[in-house]
Amino acid sequence: ESGALDQARRMLNRGLAPVDVAHLLESTPPKEREILWGLLDPELHGDVLQYLGDDVQLEFLNRMDAEQLLTATEGLDVDDLADLLQQLPNTVIQEVLQSMEAQERQRVEAVLSYPEDTAGGLMNPDAITIRPDITLDVVLRYLRRHERLPDATDTLLVVTRRDELIGILSINRLLVSDVSVLVREVMQTDFHAIQATASDSDVATLFQKHDLISAPVVGIDGKLLGRITIDDVVDVIREDAEHQVMSMAGLDEDEDTFAPALRTSRRRAVWLGINLIAATIVSIAIGFFEDTIQQIAALAVLMPIVSSMGGIAGSQTLTVLIRGIALGHVSGANVRWLLIRELLVGMTNGLIWAVVVGAMSVFRFDDIRLGEIIAMAMVINLTVATLAGTLIPVMLKKFKIDPALSGGVLLTTITDVVGFVAFLGLATAFYL
Amino acid sequence: ESGALDQARRMLNRGLAPVDVAHLLESTPPKEREILWGLLDPELHGDVLQYLGDDVQLEFLNRMDAEQLLTATEGLDVDDLADLLQQLPNTVIQEVLQSMEAQERQRVEAVLSYPEDTAGGLMNPDAITIRPDITLDVVLRYLRRHERLPDATDTLLVVTRRDELIGILSINRLLVSDVSVLVREVMQTDFHAIQATASDSDVATLFQKHDLISAPVVGIDGKLLGRITIDDVVDVIREDAEHQVMSMAGLDEDEDTFAPALRTSRRRAVWLGINLIAATIVSIAIGFFEDTIQQIAALAVLMPIVSSMGGIAGSQTLTVLIRGIALGHVSGANVRWLLIRELLVGMTNGLIWAVVVGAMSVFRFDDIRLGEIIAMAMVINLTVATLAGTLIPVMLKKFKIDPALSGGVLLTTITDVVGFVAFLGLATAFYL
Repeated sequence: ESGALDQARRMLNRGLAPVDVAHLLESTPPKEREILWGLLDPELHGDVLQYLGDDVQLEFLNRMDAEQLLTATEGLDVDDLADLLQQLPNTVIQEVLQSMEAQERQRVEAVLSYPEDTAGGLMNPDAITIRPDITLDVVLRYLRRHERLPDATDTLLVVTRRDELIGILSINRLLVSDVSVLVREVMQTDFHAIQATASDSDVATLFQKHDLISAPVVGIDGKLLGRITIDDVVDVIREDAEHQVMSMAGLDEDEDTFAPALRTSRRRAVWLGINLIAATIVSIAIGFFEDTIQQIAALAVLMPIVSSMGGIAGSQTLTVLIRGIALGHVSGANVRWLLIRELLVGMTNGLIWAVVVGAMSVFRFDDIRLGEIIAMAMVINLTVATLAGTLIPVMLKKFKIDPALSGGVLLTTITDVVGFVAFLGLATAFYL
Repeated sequence: ESGALDQARRMLNRGLAPVDVAHLLESTPPKEREILWGLLDPELHGDVLQYLGDDVQLEFLNRMDAEQLLTATEGLDVDDLADLLQQLPNTVIQEVLQSMEAQERQRVEAVLSYPEDTAGGLMNPDAITIRPDITLDVVLRYLRRHERLPDATDTLLVVTRRDELIGILSINRLLVSDVSVLVREVMQTDFHAIQATASDSDVATLFQKHDLISAPVVGIDGKLLGRITIDDVVDVIREDAEHQVMSMAGLDEDEDTFAPALRTSRRRAVWLGINLIAATIVSIAIGFFEDTIQQIAALAVLMPIVSSMGGIAGSQTLTVLIRGIALGHVSGANVRWLLIRELLVGMTNGLIWAVVVGAMSVFRFDDIRLGEIIAMAMVINLTVATLAGTLIPVMLKKFKIDPALSGGVLLTTITDVVGFVAFLGLATAFYL
């Protein structure tokens, strides 16, 4: 047994890269995870922590004191360190900051002063800056004085004496240009400078559009604050995507896959409660037709088909619209076109499947009127569904509500109510 | 009118970057899109085409002949060109290839020989290669002979005389090292070489794990074939994420937001048909209890609550599992733990919401037995839902079926059937 533990310890501390250790911890249920963490050398804690999802990260951070945190985070990049600190209570952050050297503290505080989801929160103050009036030869000699360059250094940032960013010099251009020319003569002046207050999604869009590897971040005064590198942008892109998928089920994208049962139950209960409100509204709508159902029970047998087909048609439209909004394809000018398109799609598919479902119902219950009624209800519900699928995300967006989170519940509530009321209402009108 | 067109033409051809023109085209309904495309200079077609989604890209590609294609694609990177060609019928590909210069044709054919979703399909043969036995000074002079270096060149690839990749030299190391040393002495030999047959998702994982900017691609014989750059990997990450969201609604991630109504209806109809089969199964299950419903219509009023809460609970579990599988957290070893956790979560939330729904039902219909029956059905359905949500993606994965596409339909069919049968079955047993 102790031999196996020794082997695990060796693997964790020497065999695996920190990113792989983090992945292993995230793939392990709580008890085993505890054991693995205990086997890990404390000086590796910080390296591993930075690769963990927020939920698991917090689990370990919460039981470290300021001194342990300081040991663990030594040698981390400033942006990664700031990410970790942002998770902690203010008092602990202050304690850790107090025990840092003045220069390092200032750099970390600069990043911490911006929210995590802004360019300022993503940036790293590790940029290499140069002056415009030196030759490339001097630049090359200056670089050679470094032990190593920061990761993803594809450009040098050209600043004035007062730290104002006036240009960038790509390393590639530095390597192919004549060494006797001045920086000013070869630097690019039409570069992408990111405002520190820009949102991380806007940063991601900019990087994707222009295939950037790094970009400088400036304050409102045009002074250089730091730079953002593609590896952090990739994390933003991945998290944004996960956010959409997870929030459609009312979940958090940082959720630990192996969270304990009690915590999981508590977190999921809220979403179930919200959906119970929706289901109750639907049930109340059906309640108005209790007498009709009492007389024709076949209605209760068929009614889930109408609501379910409406839900599917609506969620297809909703998904296309949410993506279109996220990609910036959908704007006020073309919503009208989309609305008409979806109206046509809803009616077309409504008619096609109305015929199928109507025929099936006539065959099953030997009742032509029932077939006509369900067919009409299908056309109504699929048309309303596609219209609702178009308008819900557009309106939610206008009120700055996340359509991925609340769009689905709103939509199915509408398609359920409309589906049941159309079907049962038509039945009440034509049968009784 | 003609003044406005002239202005639009100027903006398209000189004011906007090709990536922005592509975005504009994708944000425009068909007719206006047609007009904009007509205003675009033919030599810009290729630049713009490479930034379009597959669906819109194909729309324009389909009406170009081989000669137009050749003009349009002049100057494109080999990997981008191969991406475009892959969309076309084989005869057209051959025609375009025939009219290329021999060397360019060979390079494009090499990329085309690998499927689009592999490392070989992503790679670009534009790597800068050097020999191990030259000094860094010679390397620097060699680089200076280039007009420009390929984008995202963060490493030089060290190869033998027979093109076998034996090391990489990062530009950063080149810049800080003594120029008199040999490449062999400073090159890295523990680099990440990607097999040409590796899947694009594996490539994306590797880039994310190790914060890579570019990585070499080799054949089975260890010979260098090309390199993959982070900008193409970012596209893979984004497309993988979009695939998950879109396929949950039975849609394709390449779908044009502004596809015409008829094409949209046809594409969506298939998914509606599959869901109709599921809804029919559910309806047949309810049909067994027609007599019970005839006697107690309140059952029909309440039954959607049971099925809908089960569907929500199940889809929460399904979402967590699909993500866990995609991230590589879930494996055979820990599925058992997850199954037990989800069983506990399902029972806990089942009990909590059973009490609430039971009480609401007693209050609404003044019938204690009805409350007991719906509470029992809730516990059963939420427990089954979380178990199904765990097992469905694990099993689908085993059979190599995409869980994001078919998981949802399978799950709601199960939660609907179990929910209705449990509720109506218990009512039949205890009431009649």
